[in-house]
Amino acid sequence: MAGTDKTRDPILGGPTVVLVDPQLGENIGMVARAMLNCGLNKLRLVRPRDGWPNPAAVAAAAGADEVLDRAKLFDDTASAIADMKHVYAASARQRDMIKPVVTPRLAAGEMHAAAGRGDAVALLFGPERSGLTNDDVALADSLLAVPLNPAFASLNLAQAVLVIGYEWFQAASDSEGRWLETCGEPLADKAELVNFFDRLESALDDSGFLRPPEKRRGMVRSLRNMIQRMTPTDQDLRTLHGVISALQKDRRDH
Amino acid sequence: MAGTDKTRDPILGGPTVVLVDPQLGENIGMVARAMLNCGLNKLRLVRPRDGWPNPAAVAAAAGADEVLDRAKLFDDTASAIADMKHVYAASARQRDMIKPVVTPRLAAGEMHAAAGRGDAVALLFGPERSGLTNDDVALADSLLAVPLNPAFASLNLAQAVLVIGYEWFQAASDSEGRWLETCGEPLADKAELVNFFDRLESALDDSGFLRPPEKRRGMVRSLRNMIQRMTPTDQDLRTLHGVISALQKDRRDH
Repeated sequence: MAGTDKTRDPILGGPTVVLVDPQLGENIGMVARAMLNCGLNKLRLVRPRDGWPNPAAVAAAAGADEVLDRAKLFDDTASAIADMKHVYAASARQRDMIKPVVTPRLAAGEMHAAAGRGDAVALLFGPERSGLTNDDVALADSLLAVPLNPAFASLNLAQAVLVIGYEWFQAASDSEGRWLETCGEPLADKAELVNFFDRLESALDDSGFLRPPEKRRGMVRSLRNMIQRMTPTDQDLRTLHGVISALQKDRRDH
Repeated sequence: MAGTDKTRDPILGGPTVVLVDPQLGENIGMVARAMLNCGLNKLRLVRPRDGWPNPAAVAAAAGADEVLDRAKLFDDTASAIADMKHVYAASARQRDMIKPVVTPRLAAGEMHAAAGRGDAVALLFGPERSGLTNDDVALADSLLAVPLNPAFASLNLAQAVLVIGYEWFQAASDSEGRWLETCGEPLADKAELVNFFDRLESALDDSGFLRPPEKRRGMVRSLRNMIQRMTPTDQDLRTLHGVISALQKDRRDH
């Protein structure tokens, strides 16, 4: 189903970013860059102070021109969100309003579910200096609040967009948490590894390192574990074989 | 245990941010701001191009002076990480190196575990234009890679610090994902709610709205569900009672 694909592809079906009364073109450009970093490309501008288009925005977008080129202009917030089904208002400060509050991480899941249903979602951001007015917040379904150091929580506009967009992207990312980048090199298989262990231990036996005999088993186990933790590739083992040969030669030469 | 407390308090025990060859003071300031947003306050600078201290950094830090004031200077990367147990190197691009790669989200968990053990952790960032050298990357245990739009993945320095710091902070945050901010207003209890339902339905019976009789039960259920979804406070219910009275008076006046 198209809907299901949308929820799995972070590049499609993303929320629309609505900037209300943005001041500096540079900040609009940095927002565009942060959006494209996160696979978002739908930008709406309500009354940009310095007019539109704005060369300062292009310079700051660092190549995210496609977001700026597609940006749409609106005269007021209500018309900018007219075709939306759910609106999140980004707000660093608490409002004297009874309103659901949601974190970017939870909102990301909600937004992917909405994308799957085909429901359009907007993220509403206010001007740099003051943030959204209470009247604009009252047009939103929920407040988006980024959990940050309560003693120093204020983000600039592009950073707020980045954190929320980042969570949108993570919610669809199938990235593993930790992996070994091997640059296409095959990992050594266990036969090669045991072959190297035998070579190393035999060299160390010859040199008298693995003594006294009652300590040998523990020492061998430690060495094998060290090499295992290295997760060597084929090439790594060839290098290590070379190291042993070189050291043995060195010793013989002395 | 102190270690356990550290892992739960996002402000304590955080990783050290090491900037290698940072160029613009403004970017160092924005890094300091992003760090303090995320409860991080240990900054090290290796060969800052424009010297240190730098007034441009203070201006851009937007109040995060405590991070700049505590910043330490180093002559090379090796001495900046000398006392560290684990070093993550931030890198947007793949390296021709066999290296574990980890996402900020997984690294955040690892860093909290390290903080719990009392192991010092550093996050290594290269200069704005070029990123870390391969020699600096070779000093690190793991590469940190932020999953982002592969067609447009490059973050500026402060944004890279923000995303990684954000994950550090989230890993210790006990924030709920979604809640209703009631500004201290008590939610209506169910007796008040049912009392309001009765009042509304009686008014609608009088007005002839809840007809025909066989539809009444379904219409009442829809209205009750709408009001339930509103999650009204005591004050909200008083307002709604007032609305009914006002509309009834209006109707009687016509």
